[in-house]
Amino acid sequence: MMESIGKQAMLELAITLPPRGSGAVMRVLHRELRSAILDGRLKPGLRLPSTRILADSWGVSRNTVMGAYDLLLSEGYLFARHGAGTYVAEALPIRADRVAVPDEPNKEPDRRLSEFWQSPPRYLLKPWASTAPSNMLFRLGVPDTASFPYHIWRRLLARSLRSLAKQPAAYVEAEGRPALREAIANHVSFARAVACNSDDVVVTAGTQQAFDLLAKILVTPGKTTVAIEDPGYAPVRGAFLAVGAKIAPVPVDADGVIVDRIPADTKIICVTPSHQFPVGVAMSMRRRAELLEFARANDAVIIEDDYDGEFRFGTTPRDALQTLDRAGSVFYVGTFSKSLFPGIRLGFVVCPPWAKRTLCAAKQVTDWHQPVLEQDALAAFISEGHMARHVRKMRKLYAERRELMMTGLQTHFGAWLDPVPAAGGMHLTAFGREPLDFDAIARSARQRNMDVRSLRALSASGECQPGLVLGYGATSPDGITEGLLQLRRLFPATGPTKYARGGARSLVA
Amino acid sequence: MMESIGKQAMLELAITLPPRGSGAVMRVLHRELRSAILDGRLKPGLRLPSTRILADSWGVSRNTVMGAYDLLLSEGYLFARHGAGTYVAEALPIRADRVAVPDEPNKEPDRRLSEFWQSPPRYLLKPWASTAPSNMLFRLGVPDTASFPYHIWRRLLARSLRSLAKQPAAYVEAEGRPALREAIANHVSFARAVACNSDDVVVTAGTQQAFDLLAKILVTPGKTTVAIEDPGYAPVRGAFLAVGAKIAPVPVDADGVIVDRIPADTKIICVTPSHQFPVGVAMSMRRRAELLEFARANDAVIIEDDYDGEFRFGTTPRDALQTLDRAGSVFYVGTFSKSLFPGIRLGFVVCPPWAKRTLCAAKQVTDWHQPVLEQDALAAFISEGHMARHVRKMRKLYAERRELMMTGLQTHFGAWLDPVPAAGGMHLTAFGREPLDFDAIARSARQRNMDVRSLRALSASGECQPGLVLGYGATSPDGITEGLLQLRRLFPATGPTKYARGGARSLVA
Repeated sequence: MMESIGKQAMLELAITLPPRGSGAVMRVLHRELRSAILDGRLKPGLRLPSTRILADSWGVSRNTVMGAYDLLLSEGYLFARHGAGTYVAEALPIRADRVAVPDEPNKEPDRRLSEFWQSPPRYLLKPWASTAPSNMLFRLGVPDTASFPYHIWRRLLARSLRSLAKQPAAYVEAEGRPALREAIANHVSFARAVACNSDDVVVTAGTQQAFDLLAKILVTPGKTTVAIEDPGYAPVRGAFLAVGAKIAPVPVDADGVIVDRIPADTKIICVTPSHQFPVGVAMSMRRRAELLEFARANDAVIIEDDYDGEFRFGTTPRDALQTLDRAGSVFYVGTFSKSLFPGIRLGFVVCPPWAKRTLCAAKQVTDWHQPVLEQDALAAFISEGHMARHVRKMRKLYAERRELMMTGLQTHFGAWLDPVPAAGGMHLTAFGREPLDFDAIARSARQRNMDVRSLRALSASGECQPGLVLGYGATSPDGITEGLLQLRRLFPATGPTKYARGGARSLVA
Repeated sequence: MMESIGKQAMLELAITLPPRGSGAVMRVLHRELRSAILDGRLKPGLRLPSTRILADSWGVSRNTVMGAYDLLLSEGYLFARHGAGTYVAEALPIRADRVAVPDEPNKEPDRRLSEFWQSPPRYLLKPWASTAPSNMLFRLGVPDTASFPYHIWRRLLARSLRSLAKQPAAYVEAEGRPALREAIANHVSFARAVACNSDDVVVTAGTQQAFDLLAKILVTPGKTTVAIEDPGYAPVRGAFLAVGAKIAPVPVDADGVIVDRIPADTKIICVTPSHQFPVGVAMSMRRRAELLEFARANDAVIIEDDYDGEFRFGTTPRDALQTLDRAGSVFYVGTFSKSLFPGIRLGFVVCPPWAKRTLCAAKQVTDWHQPVLEQDALAAFISEGHMARHVRKMRKLYAERRELMMTGLQTHFGAWLDPVPAAGGMHLTAFGREPLDFDAIARSARQRNMDVRSLRALSASGECQPGLVLGYGATSPDGITEGLLQLRRLFPATGPTKYARGGARSLVA
């Protein structure tokens, strides 16, 4: 009943294969055979030559041909008869045509979306990742990973995998693997004097998920007011907006967020006390005390985002809000995107005991738990000292880059820019002097492959002092020198006739 | 000014070290030295012996001692003077005392939580992961990973890591890596005849995050009604409850969800058409047509959860709802937790074009993107045919186990249980005959290390027919035989005098 196709006929299919030894051969072979079946060159019911014969004919390994056959078998293009060879399937899977409903930005929003997502803030729809191609100078918020010990990471991943392979399949604890929570608790207890033990730690998919989960458990849609630093980090605003919170932007000065400007009905206050994003100031001790008192008196909570706390230079850091707090008001949020690499997607919340069970439940219902392998590898990376070693190395490197940035900005931009001396991190902010248009300068810089941001673009109210924000974490010393030179060309050759008001003290207009 | 401590004095610290060669030595050494500093045995300002001398004295490698020193340096317990040795720090980090606010289940909920999380459904607070210890028989929802090709996975991870190490640090696309979306689109196009291309795919942290993201973009809190199968999968109910949706449990019969019972104002319908969870029936073609028509006529959407679609046996599966749909109403959700392993936390949504941009934005604001390494490894695992091969192997294995289960249940439990013949998956449901108390039987079974569920416990309304649900994915053939024997002892020795009503047709009370 069934027809066979011979070796010669198969060879006439004119399949061109890439060089032997690459995994690509199998993929091409699979694609070509599939096309041949779909366009009828290989007819339903046809018996195919054996993998051995084809491998010889095409000069590829037999495993390669078997791989392609296996894939086609599983996809329903071929079927096998035990001991009787491989055949083209009689009834082929049919791809239905797509209903063409193009997603036009200016189209009326689809009524099937939630009210919020029918008209969300524009920056939520814009992809964050592509805003700074990886070859740009002064990229904001990304570390240098060129000297990350990837070989150690590979070894630790392989070890975790060996251990995983020995255990029965299982979903694990929503709050994170015990060894990782222990390692994180030790890390922040000592590196940041954050008072906690492993029971207080919940592992998250980076800082962004920490915000999302906290928004989930703390915000009653349409009711809860959240205070956000202005200028500040837009994604945290996004996380709270998306769950229906009311947002109150609160201005920042040289002492950090201005506590007197926080609306009285605020229930959540998001701050970056050790290194205000983007301005770079550290919150003064007086402000810290005021903020904690506000939270205590108003039954509010504080979300302390310590996004680059590891990278402070020289000076002893001020105590974390979490350390100073006596009312269980503070959620301390940290990330490994800066100290390791962004692709790892691991961060954590140090959580007051009253909220721990709820935060775990929110994590569980959101995505159950973080991937096991990377959690286990990270636990070993920290507890075996690799993390501490890497951070110490990077701290030196970032300190040098910061020095280069400060000197460069002071030397060549002194007439126009007033850099904020920050004690750490991977970016610098410089206040700008009027009448220059710093939005326009930032736009021109981006056209010249520099990820320079206008300070005002990072403000929700648009009311902060003008200036520029420049990352240096992922820009080499040569890149910094070259970049500042290029940037200088976007400024007038001579300085302004008289200095406009300046300095961090008068940051808010 | 500075005092030194000699080798002998250090040895008197009585540090006991584990056997050489394990990473544990360094950790113990670190802990012991830290304790010695904290309890004053090593005094502030003391100069420590060189790492070489200590390594010799303790009979450990010099790297081990250096690792411990590095860690203590980074934690602030030691400080180094260039070329002048290592000293105990003068000012030690101080751990503040915890504010004791124990998390008592019966305590008044904290007012700082959102209204929903002040009294959430109990099953959201209960940890899902620990409900079935990994040595239990008949565990529900977990695959057998004993024959997963971990060596291939390790190789692909290492390859992805090498490639990552060559690139500058970057956050990547919220919707998932292009190669992975391409691989997933091919996989579902052919394996499940789901009509899509890579642009329609959004990568998620497993099925649970798919539900969470869809809940986010589709539910207006307090307004949107969501229909959920009853009995059904509780975590999907949880995801929608947590964002403020109104839940409508809809009964299931032998044809799948009863479309006539879906409330008219329903905007989202969550179904498991290829293998209803937990009952195991496949939705009939007539029901599929009715359901699609309901969605079209009511401007509603359907979430099609194909949680174990890869593991069907023998019969050709019915077309997915996504394939049959002509109104762009269907979100098709898949996972790799069953086909690979649960710890991987990767799943996906095939999304109608009108919702794609919004779904990406929701993913971005929720946790930005999935970890890069595992995405890249999975792309290769699928496109190089390893996935298809593994699935085919497991399909055989699960088919054998299902056969063993069916035969065992029919032979030994025929008087009491009426197993639902399901064409695939990794679990079986058997309707039970009154007057037996199947809740009590399930409880007894769990005490005897069997993860047997009462069907009624998986029903939100509690109104479904009694019965038992047994997983066999992660239970060996011997385990199945032994387990069924043990389970039989929990049933009366002889059958009931006459048969109660039975069969899937009358599933709903």
